[in-house]
Amino acid sequence: MFAQRVARLAPYVPGEQPGPRPGGRSYVKLNANENPYPPSPLAVQAVTRLLTDDPARLARYPDPDSAALRAAVAALLNTTGGVLTAPSAESGLHLTPDMIFLANGSDEALSFLFYAFFDSEGRHCIVQTAPTYSFYPVYAGFYGIPLCAVPLFSDFRLDTGALVKGANETDSSIILANPNAPTGMAINRALLRALPPDRVHVVDEAYADFAAESALPLLAEFPNLAIVRTFSKSMSFAGMRLGYVAANPPLIAALTTVKNSFNHFPLDVLTQTAGIAACGDVPWYAENVRRIVAQRESFGAVLRHSGWQVLPSQANFLFAQKPGTSGREIYERCKAAGILVRHFPTPPLDGFVRITIGTAEEMAALEECLAPGIPRPL
Amino acid sequence: MFAQRVARLAPYVPGEQPGPRPGGRSYVKLNANENPYPPSPLAVQAVTRLLTDDPARLARYPDPDSAALRAAVAALLNTTGGVLTAPSAESGLHLTPDMIFLANGSDEALSFLFYAFFDSEGRHCIVQTAPTYSFYPVYAGFYGIPLCAVPLFSDFRLDTGALVKGANETDSSIILANPNAPTGMAINRALLRALPPDRVHVVDEAYADFAAESALPLLAEFPNLAIVRTFSKSMSFAGMRLGYVAANPPLIAALTTVKNSFNHFPLDVLTQTAGIAACGDVPWYAENVRRIVAQRESFGAVLRHSGWQVLPSQANFLFAQKPGTSGREIYERCKAAGILVRHFPTPPLDGFVRITIGTAEEMAALEECLAPGIPRPL
Repeated sequence: MFAQRVARLAPYVPGEQPGPRPGGRSYVKLNANENPYPPSPLAVQAVTRLLTDDPARLARYPDPDSAALRAAVAALLNTTGGVLTAPSAESGLHLTPDMIFLANGSDEALSFLFYAFFDSEGRHCIVQTAPTYSFYPVYAGFYGIPLCAVPLFSDFRLDTGALVKGANETDSSIILANPNAPTGMAINRALLRALPPDRVHVVDEAYADFAAESALPLLAEFPNLAIVRTFSKSMSFAGMRLGYVAANPPLIAALTTVKNSFNHFPLDVLTQTAGIAACGDVPWYAENVRRIVAQRESFGAVLRHSGWQVLPSQANFLFAQKPGTSGREIYERCKAAGILVRHFPTPPLDGFVRITIGTAEEMAALEECLAPGIPRPL
Repeated sequence: MFAQRVARLAPYVPGEQPGPRPGGRSYVKLNANENPYPPSPLAVQAVTRLLTDDPARLARYPDPDSAALRAAVAALLNTTGGVLTAPSAESGLHLTPDMIFLANGSDEALSFLFYAFFDSEGRHCIVQTAPTYSFYPVYAGFYGIPLCAVPLFSDFRLDTGALVKGANETDSSIILANPNAPTGMAINRALLRALPPDRVHVVDEAYADFAAESALPLLAEFPNLAIVRTFSKSMSFAGMRLGYVAANPPLIAALTTVKNSFNHFPLDVLTQTAGIAACGDVPWYAENVRRIVAQRESFGAVLRHSGWQVLPSQANFLFAQKPGTSGREIYERCKAAGILVRHFPTPPLDGFVRITIGTAEEMAALEECLAPGIPRPL
């Protein structure tokens, strides 16, 4: 009764979405890499104003090309260089709106990238690292695209040479999360120059606003590079669904053809309105990212001080293990204390937990649970 | 550089999205079957309240299962029986939330239906009428599914016998818009009992709230029937992106697996919030649908009175032609007067225009353009 392709699907499993705790309080949610701060008040005001002044606008189709939002995203990136906390005058980027493809979250953008650039006919299959974002194999299965995984070094550093060798041997494209998930570790963008230039490669920068640098400047040199980014993390838009691809215009045109053959209007008018306003409030977001990065560093120091191994993160989360304790045990101890973190069932990740960086108060509560009574290092 | 499948895509072309008119005024838009009335004030208020009371909610992922909205949609359908103007106590429907699959507009729902139930391997291909909604062949091309089209009778009535024969000869499923696009003509749901019961068939009821009846009561008898519906037309949600499938639980489970292998969170928190509130305001929507249906009937009578051929519509639009004049000429005359209608370039549709039913004022302006000086029939 169902199409044969449905049988081979293995859906992605996102972070736990809990109901209320016993007793009716809610959990502190540090398990989905959400931003603990609200989106820019300018974004909230823009949507409220539209609802108040022109509710009949909701009955009309949105702009299918999201022209104004694409221009706003290009301008945002040109201002920040792809890292919200970076000094503004020095980005050197000159992205144009025809270099931006918008999607209903970066997951939809990734799905369209797989469809557009990775073939199911044997050529142009895809190479990823292991571990990495666990949605990539799901997309490969969705479209029947062969995928092979190249292990990281045992300390979770990227083996760039092995990755490029793997891609060249199979004439494949590469998909690479940088910073990587769930480790949070990043590579210098200079290493991306080793990617074979004759094929499309995807760099997933979902967390790049929390990192030292972005690969966006490489777009001027690499016509086949596609950089995926999201408003969900640094821009506090997880509930609003907005992601995008930055790439050169021919790649964006191909993605647009794919989108228009799937769903003409994936971005509703409220998300477009909020996104345009959010792009104009760099100070709000830069300040929140600075607070999260500072909290990440101080919390990582606390964990290390109390005997944890903490991977060097450039994202809004930490990947850490306490020798002698499983990730599941840590997860359960935290959950009993009303705090959700994420653990992973299989080696080499099963000793670790992934901890989203929340507010100072939330991290203090988690510290009480994970490293009780240990004074913060100076 | 691109996957081979991109070359065979032929994207859907939606109704014209105009810029401002010469002189800066805006067009009267009667070309995309949008609702001229705003969504329920309860929906607008619910979103405004969320933005005011809990803006940090926007930074958290939405419910990926949209559980509350699915329950609200099931309750709405149980109240109305699938036709908003129908008497409420007699629907006889008992849909449960596990019979509702929600999507980012009904176009996304259609795409997932094609993926889930129509094979690319030769079996379970798909039969449609010609003409019908022009996105169906686009989806078939997107997934490489063989599609064949069975012509309507020359008066645009559905040839049910030929459709079922075509499906049986090729062991195919059927996709059927009812009311059909762009004609607006509907068939009695009793004719759907002829669909071969051993395969999944899709009935697209985008316009059913403007019709005499819905196929929803057939779900109790036909485990393989999937009914697609949308909030875009009768619920004034075109700008908010919300569509759904009503079907028996095994079909909904398959669609959910497909969705979770593509994009976990297609419905943002504002759309979910607005949708739940909208489902609770049947009186608002029933009144608007009644006004649109009344306007459709009176405007159709005016056109007929002045020599037009008007197909009998059960949708929120009319498909009509003036003998001796091409659809393109009518379109251009209307556009010069500041009103957009839709025309189609190829026979047998090229004599017609598709006219969305707007407000009384909008229809009076169009009447002045199409049938000037002709008194309304009594």
